[in-house]
Formats: sequence, C-alpha cells, structure tokens
Amino acid sequence: MEQSALQLQSLVKKSGELEVSLARVPVPAPKADEVLVRVEATPLNPSDLGLLFGAADMSTARVSGSASQPVITARIPQDRMQAMAGRVDQPMPVGNEGAGVVVAAGDAPESQALMGKTVAILGGAMYAQYRAIKAKQCLVLPSGASAADGASCFVNPLTSQGMVETMRMEGHKALVHTAAASNLGQMLNRICVADGVGLVNIVRSKEQAEMLQGQGAKYVCSTGAPDFVEDLTRALAETGATIAFDAIGGGPLAGQILAAMETAANRTAKEYSRYGSAMHKQVYVYGNLDTGPSLLNRNYGMAWGLGGWFLTPFLQKIGKDAAQKLRMRVVRELRTTFASRYTKEVSLAEVLSPAEITVYNRRSTGTKYLVNPNKGVDR
Amino acid sequence: MEQSALQLQSLVKKSGELEVSLARVPVPAPKADEVLVRVEATPLNPSDLGLLFGAADMSTARVSGSASQPVITARIPQDRMQAMAGRVDQPMPVGNEGAGVVVAAGDAPESQALMGKTVAILGGAMYAQYRAIKAKQCLVLPSGASAADGASCFVNPLTSQGMVETMRMEGHKALVHTAAASNLGQMLNRICVADGVGLVNIVRSKEQAEMLQGQGAKYVCSTGAPDFVEDLTRALAETGATIAFDAIGGGPLAGQILAAMETAANRTAKEYSRYGSAMHKQVYVYGNLDTGPSLLNRNYGMAWGLGGWFLTPFLQKIGKDAAQKLRMRVVRELRTTFASRYTKEVSLAEVLSPAEITVYNRRSTGTKYLVNPNKGVDR
Repeated sequence: MEQSALQLQSLVKKSGELEVSLARVPVPAPKADEVLVRVEATPLNPSDLGLLFGAADMSTARVSGSASQPVITARIPQDRMQAMAGRVDQPMPVGNEGAGVVVAAGDAPESQALMGKTVAILGGAMYAQYRAIKAKQCLVLPSGASAADGASCFVNPLTSQGMVETMRMEGHKALVHTAAASNLGQMLNRICVADGVGLVNIVRSKEQAEMLQGQGAKYVCSTGAPDFVEDLTRALAETGATIAFDAIGGGPLAGQILAAMETAANRTAKEYSRYGSAMHKQVYVYGNLDTGPSLLNRNYGMAWGLGGWFLTPFLQKIGKDAAQKLRMRVVRELRTTFASRYTKEVSLAEVLSPAEITVYNRRSTGTKYLVNPNKGVDR
Repeated sequence: MEQSALQLQSLVKKSGELEVSLARVPVPAPKADEVLVRVEATPLNPSDLGLLFGAADMSTARVSGSASQPVITARIPQDRMQAMAGRVDQPMPVGNEGAGVVVAAGDAPESQALMGKTVAILGGAMYAQYRAIKAKQCLVLPSGASAADGASCFVNPLTSQGMVETMRMEGHKALVHTAAASNLGQMLNRICVADGVGLVNIVRSKEQAEMLQGQGAKYVCSTGAPDFVEDLTRALAETGATIAFDAIGGGPLAGQILAAMETAANRTAKEYSRYGSAMHKQVYVYGNLDTGPSLLNRNYGMAWGLGGWFLTPFLQKIGKDAAQKLRMRVVRELRTTFASRYTKEVSLAEVLSPAEITVYNRRSTGTKYLVNPNKGVDR
C-alpha cells in the first residue's frame, strides 16, 4: 500500500479566504480496534456543503494548482467571518458518510473479522482515499451490495426514520415533509407507505408531485399550485398531521404550515378559543435550502413550536439499542426503501472543478453527486 | 340586591363590525357550590385586549349609545375575519381575572364560609358588576387586603412564577425576559432577586433600565443602546441563561436572543462544531406586543427552539398541588413580590370611552388600567 494518499481539506484563513485543496496525508496504520477502509463511494449531501465551503461566496471561486491536485479559493464576506471563528486557520477534512473496502485491520478479533468486507461508515473525513476507524463503527453491508449501494446508509436513512420516530415519541399521528421530492423525501415516503403512516408531502412543482404520486404518495401539495394553502389544509385535516419536518428553513413556509394546521384543527373545534386550538403544532427545521430569514406571522394560537432538528442528538436521545434497530432496518432494506439515486459519480479532483461546484452547490432536488475518492487516482 | 346588572360584551358581527357594549343581564343566583361576587377591581391586561377588540381596526372606532351605556363600533378588515370565525354573532363576556366581595352564597358549607370575604378569581367574564363562580375557584385574600390589592392575583403572578418553574423543569439555570419593565417584568425581577435566580432583563430605554436597576436588577440590557447585542451577549455569558420569555413576538428580537445565546456558548467552546453549540437554546413567546411577523435568521446552529408559552396548559402540566403552591405564594407575598401598580381606575362605561381606549390599547409598558365595574353605577 502507498505511504500517502489524498484527503480533501477545507481551510478558512484569517484573511477571509476559503481554500479547498487535496492534501497528501500519510495513510494511517490501524490501531488494534480499528480497520483501514479504502473509500469508494461517499455522497455530497447538503449537510456536507456547510463544512466544505463555509460562509464563502462561491461566485468568487477561482481554481489553481494542477489537474490532479486543484485548489479552489473563494472570498468570505467580512460580516460572515464571526460565524467561522471556531475553524479559522485549521484545515478541516470533510465528508460525513461513505462506504468502501476494509484493506487493513488491527490485531483485535473484531477488527480482523472485517478484512475484505465492504462497510459503511458515519464518521466524517470521508472525502479521502483512506479512512481509519474503529471496527465497531462499521456497518457491514449485505453480501452483493457495492460501496455505492451503501454510501448513503446513515444520514438520509436514519434521518427519515428519525422523523417518523420523533412523530411517535412526541405523540403526533401523521407528519408533513417539505422538499419532499428529494432522495430523503422519497425514502420517507417509502417508509410511510410501508408502515401505514400518514404523510403530507410538500413539493415545488407538478412534476415532483407526479413523481411522488407514482411512488404511492397519497398526499402531495405543490407550493406552485394556486390553491396550495387550501390543498395543504385539507391534507392536514384528513391525516391529522400536527408535526412537520422542513428542509427549507427560510421564507414563509414553516409559518404557513403552522397556520394551516391551526385552520385544520379549528374546522373541527366545538367552541371558540381566543388563544387558538389547544393542540400542539410543531415544525422542525432540519435543513437550510433557503438560507434567508424565516418569517412567522404567529396567527396560530399559543400551542406551537419551531425548532432545529438534528440527527446526532436524536440518536443520543433514543439510546444505543433503539439506534441499532434503525441501522438494522437500513441494512435489511438497503436496495429498496433506502436506495439512493445519484446523477453523477465524480473523483476528488472533480469535486474541486468550478463547473461541478456550480451544479452540486445549487442544492436543487434531483441533483445528487457520489464521490469516488479512488477514481482516477494514481496508486 | 338588584335584579339585573351591567356586563361588558364584545360582539363580532358577520358583517365585519365589532360592537362592544354594556348589556343588562340578570344577576345570577348562586348554586349550592357557588358564590356571587360583587366585582370591584379587574385589570385590563394585554391578554384581555384580544377578546375585547378582536381583529378590529380600532382607528375606525365610533361611540354611540348613552353616557352610562355607551356602545363602541369598529370595522374588522375583511382579511382578518377568518380568524374570527369561531366567535361570529356570539356576544362574548370579557375580563380574565379580578377581585371583589362575596355578597351571596349557595347552601354548601364551603360556599357559606366565604360570605362577606374579599376573594380573587380567574374565571373570565370579570368586566361585570357580578360574577357567580364555584367557591373552590375563589382565592381568599389575606385580611386587610382590598379588592384592588388582589385584582391581579393570577395572570401576572402565576405567569412570572411559571417562567421560573419552566426554566427549572427544562434544565436551564438562568433566564431572559423581554418587555421587562412591565408589571409582570417587575414581579419576575422581584422573584429572581429573592430566589437568587439569574435574570437578564431586556427593556427599550435607559429610563426603564434605571427603574429595574433601582429594584435590584443586576442585568438590564436596553434595545435602544448602540451596543445592545454585545451587552446582551455578555449578560448571557455571565448568567448562563439559555431560555427566554418574550412578550413582544414580532420583529427580530427573539432571533437576536438566540444568536446572542449561541455566541455566548461559543465563547467558551473548546472545538469547532459546524452544527453550532450542542446546548439547547429556547425562546418562548407569551405575548404579542408587536403583532408583526417574527424574523429568524437561524444563525445559531441546530439546537434551538421557539414556541408559544401559555399559562393554562402550564398549570395543567405541573398539576394541582404544584399550582396550589404557586397560588399560596401569591397570597403570602401579595403586597410585596406580587404588588401591581395601576395608572388609573376606570368604570365600565369609561372602558368604552374612545379617549381611554386610545391610551390602554397602546399596550405600552407603564400604562395599566384597573376597572371597577361597580364604580359610578346606579344601584
């Protein structure tokens, strides 16, 4: 095996410059309880882009360096540097999850047992040719599954299951999802169809609505339709959904959902309450597709909440055993419920191509890239 | 005793007209477990104004009727009528809380025991000369306390205690309060000074800040000061406050508080987290002094929540015994911790005076009216 290999690093400089490059780092030797994974498939998730590009204005991006080791630089607006304070002048590896083949293993039996296996990992620093990681953090893929099949084993599959579990834990009977035509949205729809859970899908266009309906979705409301609010209210009244998961964040949508939940509740209310319905209405924001401000008109009584939702604290809250059950379902249904589709497979060097950045940084539903860090690399 | 007496009623007509009038209603005969209270003091709280004037545009208010029984009419904008659907064409009595003297009692011993006593009530329909109510709902005031002393026994005293209890129940160690120069804010400050709880008071002006500092407040930040955000961040870092109660609702303030909490948390953070600090930051909106939209920039990681906070479900959640403990503290500290100050005492007819409406409907801190429904009334 080679002595050193490529790792993507993102650096925010004190000067206000972002620099993303491919560093040559030593290939780590696994400790006793670790294995070394040759990473072959790792997705570019929206949740990776924040670390990858920080607060930089990517319209200022320039490329330098060589074809095999390009360097991207971009300016970070002065007023966004405060939010970057914690990472200034420290090169950060990127890439939440991925999959690959175990090519070396430490002495411990549980490490040795993984030699040659294809495993999935949630551990960060996956945009690299190699990743050393504890054996117990590896999810062994079922035989016949490729690294690409298992590349997105964690973030979307656990997030979509986490939404349904949160709905149950907090006493709601159905749920709402925005940006519902995404890979994650399609997974959530498959879970809800299989488990008989009421789901109101919110999408932007008729095409997205038809795609989800073709996958068995009963309720799909398009924000582009002239009667969106009435459609949504009817779907909420029929399903009884009082919790929503919102990938968008900015703009009026979260507030519109709360208001429509309140209208749906009041349609069946028996007497007037000046403080609104007593039923708790909740929206969790788990994404930031629109980074603009959220606008809340607060015309939905007093029993409402809006907040951030994030996978890691959710998994900590439910505990090891419950989290393991969710992971086992992912393995069982890897190529059905939890299948991901990618528009393109790229190398690490291609991740740093300005033309590709323009495409995958758009964060538009239906565009998802898979990185193969060992594609086109001299070994 | 007279056969009929005055009761203020607010009526939203299907035509889009608000009509507030003094109706003559029969004086009720108390049932066995009830008493009849002659109401002598009932405050005009911000929480009463919503029921009193509904969604009407009070700049269109006109007065008619007689001097002793005036009638106020005002237009309700068409686009706000949907929110009024539940109360259309039903005259609503108004007035959450108040105090008075028990002038008749049902046969049950607990009712008879209250004859002649001055009691406080939280029951609605207090803007009336008489109110029949269950004996067990009456809070007997300590001897020597007047109806005016006990008029505001519930809403502000239980809300301010409820804030501190919520802070404790949800695992926070200090709290933030906006519109902190209000009657409620002064109560909360007295509770926190007495109990040694860290409190960050947010006010609008230097005068309000000095008033609270004169009452022992350690942290007072004025939104009018040029270095408001830095002042607030420092106070949050020193107290460790991670929960806020906001009376204002609209505008950027709730988001500014969440952002300042995040900055305060990151000042002591040991390593960079792209998802922000893991510490949960919470703002509860309990009032609507600014009815405009809330603006959230969501620049405070993922561990945050914003939601409505309301006294009734809080009291239900903590249960009877805990709620009774809060009530007993109000009785014990009625003229100290929980003393209210009023700028003016008015009659029911004066509540319907356009000049007075202009003053008390401004909802400005430092203007609080006390209604005496038996003032200036022919008996």
